Amino acid sequence: MTRQIKSGIRILGVDDAVFKPHKPGKTALIGVVLQEPQKIVGILQTEITVDGIDGTFKLLEMLEQSKFRSQVRLVMLHGSTVAGFNYIDAVRVSEETELPVIIVGERKPNLASIKHALLTHFEDGKERWAILRKPGEIYECESRANTKPVYLQLAGIDFESASRIVRRCAIYSRIPEPIRIAHLIGSSFLPGNN
Amino acid sequence: MTRQIKSGIRILGVDDAVFKPHKPGKTALIGVVLQEPQKIVGILQTEITVDGIDGTFKLLEMLEQSKFRSQVRLVMLHGSTVAGFNYIDAVRVSEETELPVIIVGERKPNLASIKHALLTHFEDGKERWAILRKPGEIYECESRANTKPVYLQLAGIDFESASRIVRRCAIYSRIPEPIRIAHLIGSSFLPGNN
Repeated sequence: MTRQIKSGIRILGVDDAVFKPHKPGKTALIGVVLQEPQKIVGILQTEITVDGIDGTFKLLEMLEQSKFRSQVRLVMLHGSTVAGFNYIDAVRVSEETELPVIIVGERKPNLASIKHALLTHFEDGKERWAILRKPGEIYECESRANTKPVYLQLAGIDFESASRIVRRCAIYSRIPEPIRIAHLIGSSFLPGNN
Repeated sequence: MTRQIKSGIRILGVDDAVFKPHKPGKTALIGVVLQEPQKIVGILQTEITVDGIDGTFKLLEMLEQSKFRSQVRLVMLHGSTVAGFNYIDAVRVSEETELPVIIVGERKPNLASIKHALLTHFEDGKERWAILRKPGEIYECESRANTKPVYLQLAGIDFESASRIVRRCAIYSRIPEPIRIAHLIGSSFLPGNN
């Protein structure tokens, strides 16, 4: 599925909040609805389980219940694991919402180490691993000149279109604004694991 | 205290999160550190008591403990009551931080009704009322052309300087960006009163 995506669209940027690793509990999942280039039009919030399996469902629910649902044209994730080893199935999100999904990583994912951790610590580690690998290829993207690249995984969008959007949104750093802001909000929480 | 405030400064915008009125409990107080005109550089968060008296202390603590403390040049509050009838003593905040404080209201405060509620429902209502009235005059400010004005109360800054800054920050609406964004973040919370 390839499509031309015009500029000035509304993007949902998603990141998780602070949490205590390896402790049972919940943390927040933050959604920033941003209209390019940099107008914040709404903030969404839901709860996900640390190391749980509800990430995909909770993201879909948060978006579907939002008054911004019909305006959002693209979803950006700050990595596809959230709240530890909870995860977001980007391919499923793209299929169910009919929106393109771009996973943006600040580093090249260490696949071997993620796979090892999943298979070692989770009974369903094999299934989690298969879901994380569904988007397939990991692309390097120079989101800004003269700095390190970011790493993209894609669902419902081709690399050329995705990198154009990521570059448009990389205003203050190599991290595109929707997820830079979602990350700042998530970082403000106390690690309660309520 | 009057001073010329240059443009491009970092401003702390403050608003409270959603909460259940008249129920005991806590809610979040949100701080948005924004560099003019519209770069979000950090988000702060603390907890305040619904209808409590810890608003001033918690705001000061949140700012003093932040890594952005030395960069912030001005504080903007979205009203001086927070979490119901909890409050922020803008004059004390200005004195203790040596920063100007601008309270921005979307409507002209109904002083008679606030006073009545405080005196009726709180043993210390008279003290709360006196603190809320410390900034004195309420100014009308046309933050944007062709829309309703906002209402300012000031501590450590004169009206002319304050309205210049408020106008500079009223980019997408008559509400200046630091508190427009703090409000959007606060609105994303579930009213837990944890």
